[in-house]
Amino acid sequence: LRACERAELYVKIVRENNIPFEERGPLQILMGEDFFILLHEVMFVPSLQNLADDEQLSWWLAKAHDYKILGTYAQTELTHGSNVRGLQTSATYDESMYDGEGGWNVHTPSLEGMKWWPGGLAKSCNCVILMARVVIKGVDYGPHPFFFQVRDFETHASLPGVELRDIGAKMGYNGMDNGGMRITNVKIPRRHLLGKYVQVSKEGVYTKVGNQKMLFGTMSYTRLKISTGAGLNLAKACTTAIRYSAVRRQFAMQRTQFGEDVSLKTEGEKPDDMDAIVKPAKRSEAQVLDYSSQQYLLFPQLALAFAMHFTSEAGTKSYDHYIAQFKAENFKGLPEMHVLTSTLKAVSTVLAADGMEQCRKSLGGHGFLNAAGIGPQYLNALPQATYEGDFVVLSIQVGMAVFKACGRKLMKGLTKDPNNPSLDYLFAADLKELKTPTAPSLAELQAGITDFDFLERCMEKRANFVHFSAAQKFQEAVKQHGSMNANAIDEVKIDMMRMTYAHSYVLYVKGFRAKLDALKEGPLHKVLVPLFELFCLTIMDSGYEKGGGFGEFAASGALPASPAAFAILRARVKVLLAQLRPNAVSLVDAWNVPDYLLNSCLGRYDGRVYEALYEQTLYEPLNKTDIATGYYQHLQYILHPERRESGAQIEPQTAKL
Amino acid sequence: LRACERAELYVKIVRENNIPFEERGPLQILMGEDFFILLHEVMFVPSLQNLADDEQLSWWLAKAHDYKILGTYAQTELTHGSNVRGLQTSATYDESMYDGEGGWNVHTPSLEGMKWWPGGLAKSCNCVILMARVVIKGVDYGPHPFFFQVRDFETHASLPGVELRDIGAKMGYNGMDNGGMRITNVKIPRRHLLGKYVQVSKEGVYTKVGNQKMLFGTMSYTRLKISTGAGLNLAKACTTAIRYSAVRRQFAMQRTQFGEDVSLKTEGEKPDDMDAIVKPAKRSEAQVLDYSSQQYLLFPQLALAFAMHFTSEAGTKSYDHYIAQFKAENFKGLPEMHVLTSTLKAVSTVLAADGMEQCRKSLGGHGFLNAAGIGPQYLNALPQATYEGDFVVLSIQVGMAVFKACGRKLMKGLTKDPNNPSLDYLFAADLKELKTPTAPSLAELQAGITDFDFLERCMEKRANFVHFSAAQKFQEAVKQHGSMNANAIDEVKIDMMRMTYAHSYVLYVKGFRAKLDALKEGPLHKVLVPLFELFCLTIMDSGYEKGGGFGEFAASGALPASPAAFAILRARVKVLLAQLRPNAVSLVDAWNVPDYLLNSCLGRYDGRVYEALYEQTLYEPLNKTDIATGYYQHLQYILHPERRESGAQIEPQTAKL
Repeated sequence: LRACERAELYVKIVRENNIPFEERGPLQILMGEDFFILLHEVMFVPSLQNLADDEQLSWWLAKAHDYKILGTYAQTELTHGSNVRGLQTSATYDESMYDGEGGWNVHTPSLEGMKWWPGGLAKSCNCVILMARVVIKGVDYGPHPFFFQVRDFETHASLPGVELRDIGAKMGYNGMDNGGMRITNVKIPRRHLLGKYVQVSKEGVYTKVGNQKMLFGTMSYTRLKISTGAGLNLAKACTTAIRYSAVRRQFAMQRTQFGEDVSLKTEGEKPDDMDAIVKPAKRSEAQVLDYSSQQYLLFPQLALAFAMHFTSEAGTKSYDHYIAQFKAENFKGLPEMHVLTSTLKAVSTVLAADGMEQCRKSLGGHGFLNAAGIGPQYLNALPQATYEGDFVVLSIQVGMAVFKACGRKLMKGLTKDPNNPSLDYLFAADLKELKTPTAPSLAELQAGITDFDFLERCMEKRANFVHFSAAQKFQEAVKQHGSMNANAIDEVKIDMMRMTYAHSYVLYVKGFRAKLDALKEGPLHKVLVPLFELFCLTIMDSGYEKGGGFGEFAASGALPASPAAFAILRARVKVLLAQLRPNAVSLVDAWNVPDYLLNSCLGRYDGRVYEALYEQTLYEPLNKTDIATGYYQHLQYILHPERRESGAQIEPQTAKL
Repeated sequence: LRACERAELYVKIVRENNIPFEERGPLQILMGEDFFILLHEVMFVPSLQNLADDEQLSWWLAKAHDYKILGTYAQTELTHGSNVRGLQTSATYDESMYDGEGGWNVHTPSLEGMKWWPGGLAKSCNCVILMARVVIKGVDYGPHPFFFQVRDFETHASLPGVELRDIGAKMGYNGMDNGGMRITNVKIPRRHLLGKYVQVSKEGVYTKVGNQKMLFGTMSYTRLKISTGAGLNLAKACTTAIRYSAVRRQFAMQRTQFGEDVSLKTEGEKPDDMDAIVKPAKRSEAQVLDYSSQQYLLFPQLALAFAMHFTSEAGTKSYDHYIAQFKAENFKGLPEMHVLTSTLKAVSTVLAADGMEQCRKSLGGHGFLNAAGIGPQYLNALPQATYEGDFVVLSIQVGMAVFKACGRKLMKGLTKDPNNPSLDYLFAADLKELKTPTAPSLAELQAGITDFDFLERCMEKRANFVHFSAAQKFQEAVKQHGSMNANAIDEVKIDMMRMTYAHSYVLYVKGFRAKLDALKEGPLHKVLVPLFELFCLTIMDSGYEKGGGFGEFAASGALPASPAAFAILRARVKVLLAQLRPNAVSLVDAWNVPDYLLNSCLGRYDGRVYEALYEQTLYEPLNKTDIATGYYQHLQYILHPERRESGAQIEPQTAKL
């Protein structure tokens, strides 16, 4: 209901200010992501534009721009998400329908084939772009997009043969009415098959038109957008966590064991009894942001947010570049764009969600309150890791592309592919060095940890190690299984996940560094340098993801594998954390996230966190009365079981605001 | 409201069956954790038993057992969680009150001093154990426990001077009415100060009584219980994820790039166009559990759940052993028990929550539905990582205890401490080897990865490496800062977190192995062995936590730091995953979690997951009508803005079930 109110408000603002479709983006961000009109704006309308032919656009596009029709995109089914080819919903052609104009009989053949998940499908939308298998004269042409009406345009009642339902409560995102739909033999006109790439004549002749490759542009675009959003989400969480950590004070110093406080000892208190616990703290407490443990949790996340942001910026630039090429019918950059956006989407959604949760945990107990903001934002961000290709699915795409590049390097001796610049480092790999790596000396490491070239080379060396050893394994698997089949791929799936991470860090480090280089030696440069170094060292020391960190760097010879190397890294991390401390609050303020977007009692700019926590309880419905209805209905019988028998229960009456 | 219904049901079952207090545990587990009576049972009543003197028990205990009074435990304040000594709520003694019997004036001096978080405090409970500073004649004795009534026993209205409110919606756990309380000069009798360890006479003389050390037993017990619960939570999530992965089928094989399907190629299809996407899959799809990527996500979590379970079992045994000693006034085992329970609590809550979320992600898109079960269970489990000491706070306790042991080893040459058996491996460390570690050869590694002694030694060697290098750093920091103060501790806080993980893995591996040894060579032994090995190799290869894995093992010389060593580990992991695959479903079935506890459409024992998903939508309130109220109130004006002006809007009428 609140979501509907937001929706009407949104449309009202758009209408009153006559905001053209292309310029509605900022307003959408304000509305938040669990907002069903968003799907109309970012999925339904763009799909229509991409997939419908000109005549069809003239029927529907203006109405859609004007919210006379509200649509969503209905592809996934109960048993089929990523595997589009497995979809069951069918549209069977019948040339006798509509007085010989021809039409489709759309049908859900089984429970498993129910459409499931489309946002806004349950209650809000009145039409969808429906992916259904085209079947003509017994021939199955696979899933194609249709314009499909689901509710009456006047009464909003669901149409005959269209069963719609909400798929139930979710972990977050509950402002979105994700829907399920079962279609029972619904007839629609022939021309409701979107016709930009495929046309079916009255006689049922199926013809492909146009260049299908343009389709991949849309997919890449969506992935890029998701990556950009992921970095910004993490930046929001960092803002809340770092600001609150500067406000919150806890412990003059840490108790150590059994209430023994090592520093109070020197002030003449007895160590080994309860006194230390029961005596009040003698001095003012420290800001938790001053604790190295808190810095260690938060600053690497801040560095990651910046890395993601700068890399998305760069990615958007190259996307624009390639799209221009595609429009000129030059599709050579397609694989590059595909790998780039798949890598960034896969990694950024996972790392950003993890990082948001890390920020949330760093808030202590209050982080569990929705009023802290990060929790609900984290839950809303979680599904991003799944939709539009989850980590495993995308890492296979990345992995296969990298394997191809490895093959061209190993077989054909290629040392550069101008159409694949993000893999430059792979083509440039020193194969001899790969086989018998020589690690840098400790002195080289000590000098290297502040040298951008060294840091970048570390990322590349580690990535090449992961890529080429997996490629070798894959080759063996292909030999063993006789062909490049699913079983061979399965042998290296785990490696492909590692490859995707390793590749992404090369991209992030290059993206971050390019920004630094562009800033030259100005004041901003000085502030960002420790953040960049911390980003690199975090990847090399503890890692952002499980299985990340020192191990692969040591194994690849990018780093020496000795305790001393470890000590050098960790000592440097400690120095960087301390260097960043004074600038930390300014660095998050630099994101300039206004309080109404941050939506957090703990992250507010003015630092009045405790007052805000207290005030927000006024909005809690339970606080409208002193005694809750639960008392009258149940609790009183727990405390006074005799009332149940005697019927002498107390009725609500003492309610007060 | 539903929580209250559950509560009444619970009490009804207890009353009708006359279940004694000590035997209510299983019923409590059934009710779930976000259940306010749980705090009455596990915090209020036990605290009363531990802290009240005999006369006080005679006043309150029977009533509490009988639910004539409902209580909770009110310690944390808005600005003070872990730092008990910082609490502000005060109880000032006034011997003139109550006709010279004496009494306390209880007061919240500031907004920051509001009690905040106690479960059940907002609406449910009518009394609490209140932690407040005892102030007598201007002397502050620090926080002490009081019996404190908050609501009228008859009408349930909050008492004068007691402001109660719900602290607002949370990420999970919303069946619990966590409360805030502000107390304004409320008077209570002198004897409401719980008197087992402290007595205050009419004249205001403060006397300690009894042995305060028993108090730590309760704290350890709570931590142990939480650890045990964490393992079981993870087992539930594994059950759901592994069962569903056996039911769910997706992809005959993976698409690789641009819809090119490498294996379909051999069946005569063109590779480089859209066909591969639009053509239907030709063969039945694979169970996702057959994918190595899925196994890699799930089986290590299953191994962890077993490790936690076996280790908690062992921990409970040693807890019982020590408590018996304490009762005989022998407190030598206190540090051991403290470190043991702190380590297990800190690590198990974090790893279990992470693992649950990993299991949830492995469900694909449907994992985001509450109906999948794991999501809400994960959200309810999250706060466990925070309450009763979060990871940072506990790791400092663990770290300081380990430092002490290191000191005794280094200074006094101690090689064993019978009162500290869990640190046997530390006392037994070879100091020379620690300084200049010699890694095993590749052949030794190859032989070692199936040798339990080798695996256990790896854990120990790595842990000692982490412990002793941090201890050295700490020594230097102490020298530098002049004393063992907060700044010195802060220098090694990050190390202490690593130490806590390293120590926990020694405990887990020993706990798991002890169980295996007890099973001897039976059929169960055979099934669990690959799980044990996978557990060890996961710790050594990719790690369960960020920064875990190969790195520290390589640096410590527990493993050789070469690409080949890496390859050996990963190849073995692959073999183990395949070995475990056939037994995976049986291994989760072995936990024997009934469907009503699993509470998951996807994890049901009978595998009817899609029917269940469909059926659960019937419980969604939005599905009660075809057209939602949001349409009448807002949506219709989006689609038909003219209705707003003409007043010709459609009213709800077409509602159908």
